[in-house]
Amino acid sequence: MSVIYVIDILGTFAFAVSGALVALDKKFDMFGVLIIAFVTAVGGGMLRDVLIDAHPINWIGNLDYLYTIFIAVVFTFLFKSKIAHLSKTMFLFDTIGISVFTLLGLEKGLSFNLHPIIAIIMGVISAVFGGVLRDVLTNKVPLIFEKEIYASACLAGGIIYLILNYFNVEENINFIISAAVVAIIRVIVVRFHLELPKIKDDIFGKA
Amino acid sequence: MSVIYVIDILGTFAFAVSGALVALDKKFDMFGVLIIAFVTAVGGGMLRDVLIDAHPINWIGNLDYLYTIFIAVVFTFLFKSKIAHLSKTMFLFDTIGISVFTLLGLEKGLSFNLHPIIAIIMGVISAVFGGVLRDVLTNKVPLIFEKEIYASACLAGGIIYLILNYFNVEENINFIISAAVVAIIRVIVVRFHLELPKIKDDIFGKA
Amino acid sequence: MSVIYVIDILGTFAFAVSGALVALDKKFDMFGVLIIAFVTAVGGGMLRDVLIDAHPINWIGNLDYLYTIFIAVVFTFLFKSKIAHLSKTMFLFDTIGISVFTLLGLEKGLSFNLHPIIAIIMGVISAVFGGVLRDVLTNKVPLIFEKEIYASACLAGGIIYLILNYFNVEENINFIISAAVVAIIRVIVVRFHLELPKIKDDIFGKA
Repeated sequence: MSVIYVIDILGTFAFAVSGALVALDKKFDMFGVLIIAFVTAVGGGMLRDVLIDAHPINWIGNLDYLYTIFIAVVFTFLFKSKIAHLSKTMFLFDTIGISVFTLLGLEKGLSFNLHPIIAIIMGVISAVFGGVLRDVLTNKVPLIFEKEIYASACLAGGIIYLILNYFNVEENINFIISAAVVAIIRVIVVRFHLELPKIKDDIFGKA
Repeated sequence: MSVIYVIDILGTFAFAVSGALVALDKKFDMFGVLIIAFVTAVGGGMLRDVLIDAHPINWIGNLDYLYTIFIAVVFTFLFKSKIAHLSKTMFLFDTIGISVFTLLGLEKGLSFNLHPIIAIIMGVISAVFGGVLRDVLTNKVPLIFEKEIYASACLAGGIIYLILNYFNVEENINFIISAAVVAIIRVIVVRFHLELPKIKDDIFGKA
Repeated sequence: MSVIYVIDILGTFAFAVSGALVALDKKFDMFGVLIIAFVTAVGGGMLRDVLIDAHPINWIGNLDYLYTIFIAVVFTFLFKSKIAHLSKTMFLFDTIGISVFTLLGLEKGLSFNLHPIIAIIMGVISAVFGGVLRDVLTNKVPLIFEKEIYASACLAGGIIYLILNYFNVEENINFIISAAVVAIIRVIVVRFHLELPKIKDDIFGKA
């Protein structure tokens, strides 16, 4: 489990940097940057834990998240102009984070004996709600509702995990395969500018 | 209780359709539409259950809500152009939903031995918070704060319920009467374009 | 503790008035004004209690908060034009409220055996989240992220408290000193128009 823990921390770091960059772009002060980085990084797991009554919740039960976020914010301050050139690296981190958060959330849901459908939703919440909070607090329509389909990638990875789990695939192997599915879908989506279809009109409509 | 359960599901359906319509109007993708429908339909009960520590919370404890929302979203996709012509039907559903959600939330609060005032607030939260979440996530000032007074209708229905309860009116009869009060007030308000007064100036002011 | 209780109620009153004034300014109806006053006044403590699983949460466990908010809203309606001339009084109330909320939240965190860092965060959340909710619900970028640094004042007061606590300073004295620190920093900040630094560019950047 320790490799996954490291990846969890890396994902937290990447999410915190992504939040800090948005807040800096909005000219927030240092405290505002810290808060936005914080909610982006731990918001998903926090909502999941409150909803399933898992106390202490993520960042209260483990201070490593806070330390990671703090370091990520300092890192962002120091290297702001450099990070723009590191967008591929950040995208990699972000994708790893999303993949791991999805599976960690899903596994936590299952460990709380939740129905598999609910557990998958917990995985998706873990992965995407931080970004939603970031956008609500910076007064934007959450990005995820408009053009990102990475929630669908999380969903796909979660379903793969449950299927492999059903066939008794060993847990760590399953985790890696499913996380890879999330990451690969996300990379393909971004590279080929795919979007989920929007419904222009209903299937019986004219226009 | 089974009639009330059916109405609860109908109300969930109506709220989900209302959320899906707003999201479609905002050009959200399919996943975004599903999320907005979801929070509109179960957001009120979810907040209520988190606040009163009622675990498992509504949609985690009963998958029927999720199935209902999914069907409602598919229904909205299929019949989008038709639903515009069904606005009276939708208004009817929505009004039923609000009425029932208010009373269900109130009864749940009482069953948790909360003070009657708190229980009424839980009823109002159950009925209106889904719409507030829908509006916050689509980056609008929540409708309810600007011109809807249906929260007041919920409040009135809740008070009626408590009064009749005090006089030992049988629970199901009380439920139906109080829910009818909510629905009737809402219909009257909408038909006659009533609004709660706004305070232009204080009573001692000049202008 | 009874002096602190009185100050807690005064702080709640001040926060409720501040919320009501924002809502009136946005032309919300009476119900909307009540809700915004409510979330501004109890939102911080409510989030804290949900996060640390402290049930019943603040306003559910003690009806005095609701009564105070109700009176504050009526007071705001009655004296709206006068309150503009009372801005120093309101600022005083608000500052007292923030100071007390920070320390009460911190002490509650410690009483739940949380790590001191987490307890300080709970203090800050108690003091500032009500204002964040107020701004999100009225569709503004939360003020606190843009130019208020009073969260930093809360942070400083919380750290002082922990240091004095470490040196076994008597609890009530510690409370008063630390609350005074929060208040004094806030007053100085506002009087001299101080702001937390914003990061224009990283330290290695050119511009």
